[in-house]
Amino acid sequence: MRNVTADTITEAVLQTIADTTEPRLRRIMTSLISHLHAFAREVDLTPEEWMAAIEFLVRVGEATKTERNEFILASDTLGISALVDLSHNRASGGATTSSLLGPFYINGERMQPLEVGGDLIGDNDGEPVVVAGRVTTPQGAPIAGACLEIWQNAANGLYESEDPEHGPGNLRCKMLTDDEGRYRFTTIKPIAYTVPYDGPVGTMLQALGRHAWRPAHIHFRISAAGYHPLITELFVADDAHIDTDAVFGVREPLLVDFRRIESAEEAAAYGVTEGYALVTYDFGLQPVA
Amino acid sequence: MRNVTADTITEAVLQTIADTTEPRLRRIMTSLISHLHAFAREVDLTPEEWMAAIEFLVRVGEATKTERNEFILASDTLGISALVDLSHNRASGGATTSSLLGPFYINGERMQPLEVGGDLIGDNDGEPVVVAGRVTTPQGAPIAGACLEIWQNAANGLYESEDPEHGPGNLRCKMLTDDEGRYRFTTIKPIAYTVPYDGPVGTMLQALGRHAWRPAHIHFRISAAGYHPLITELFVADDAHIDTDAVFGVREPLLVDFRRIESAEEAAAYGVTEGYALVTYDFGLQPVA
Repeated sequence: MRNVTADTITEAVLQTIADTTEPRLRRIMTSLISHLHAFAREVDLTPEEWMAAIEFLVRVGEATKTERNEFILASDTLGISALVDLSHNRASGGATTSSLLGPFYINGERMQPLEVGGDLIGDNDGEPVVVAGRVTTPQGAPIAGACLEIWQNAANGLYESEDPEHGPGNLRCKMLTDDEGRYRFTTIKPIAYTVPYDGPVGTMLQALGRHAWRPAHIHFRISAAGYHPLITELFVADDAHIDTDAVFGVREPLLVDFRRIESAEEAAAYGVTEGYALVTYDFGLQPVA
Repeated sequence: MRNVTADTITEAVLQTIADTTEPRLRRIMTSLISHLHAFAREVDLTPEEWMAAIEFLVRVGEATKTERNEFILASDTLGISALVDLSHNRASGGATTSSLLGPFYINGERMQPLEVGGDLIGDNDGEPVVVAGRVTTPQGAPIAGACLEIWQNAANGLYESEDPEHGPGNLRCKMLTDDEGRYRFTTIKPIAYTVPYDGPVGTMLQALGRHAWRPAHIHFRISAAGYHPLITELFVADDAHIDTDAVFGVREPLLVDFRRIESAEEAAAYGVTEGYALVTYDFGLQPVA
């Protein structure tokens, strides 16, 4: 290898994993190495640009903490997350379309449990809304005890982990469906916001002249024994940014209307008063084969 | 974009940077996005594998500190650093071949200054050696006041930042060449070692069934006003790992003999006593065009 050249280096690297015993890992790494090398060759990446890339990655690492994953944000803004999601979307028949996890998901242990019909509004400003529906099989049969993890931003556009105005757990919860597969909670209507500009990914977006706006949405991660977990988002259908999402997460079947409740009877049926908006959505989970 | 699919997502992402004003950045990011998407498509990367990749990057970030750059180690072990180096090597005529920076470089401010003829051995065990030569133009004219940054491992195989036996700055220094372009220092002969196994890159190498050995070497970064900085390494020519360097850094012109000094006269000429080994090497710097 003492005579390796720019023309032979890729083959020399691939040779070192030619006998790797795990075939899937070998296939993934062979493809990754080949494409990263092809990229560096195609643009004739200079040592200075390589160092800038290393420094970018170091800053992404520094910006990443439990409550914010800047690597996911980088993957999201480069459309890699969307490609992986779209390629493995399990929506078919009555199963719901998936979307992105995003950088602000927090593992379930830090999510507050909330009963069906519970309230997330607390001291948040914003337009009150009740969100209700069922978790079902693709054929529409209720799934009792399915776990919904739910998270969204506040009226200031921030998720709790980024938000000095609110305490930990604001506008996050986990909820188990009742015996008829139902879930329901009150919250505020989420608002459009920019993904964080204060980290390296924000700096990258600005350098590229790209906006950072996401249309308003509520995140869901829904799991139940015997079903594939569903990671998805519900989007405010008339949001101005719906067709220019900075992370490519919008899917037509996930657009929902926030309809104003018109009567005391309808409000009572959802456990709220007049003046609330209403979102109804049923989630279909795909059974594990 | 609400109807984006796995087939159209790449074009949708590229469209967002089509009007970026900095053409070099646009070219680099267009190629990077295209190749990362092509990789994900080629292996049909699953959401679980994507999450494993994100978690790997988070761990690389956590392992990175001032004294150790795990992102550089990842780039080195995947041969990306070598490709960039080989593609931009400025060796020609009398200019010296470059090699890799590696993960253990520390910015000059933390490197102890050492006079020409100074000693790096201190309390280190190992085979004593004197390293001497000149820094010159490609035509062999001396460059006075060139700055050499020098770093290597100890007899236990560790760089000081990883080494509980030695204090900060062990076997690191910076040295300015004298009026005749000369440098000289005493040190111990470096030894072959493995790049760190205790971080995520080590875990990756083990999963791939790859060894982590590097042949023994001394690192140099040499800079002088009006010349391109030279990052290179001198390798122990008869090291058993010389043709299987885990990071693909060996270059034939950088192999050096550690010859035993035979006479008191020769030793005196290098400011040492009999029993030292001798390495002589002249570095040629390429002028900035």
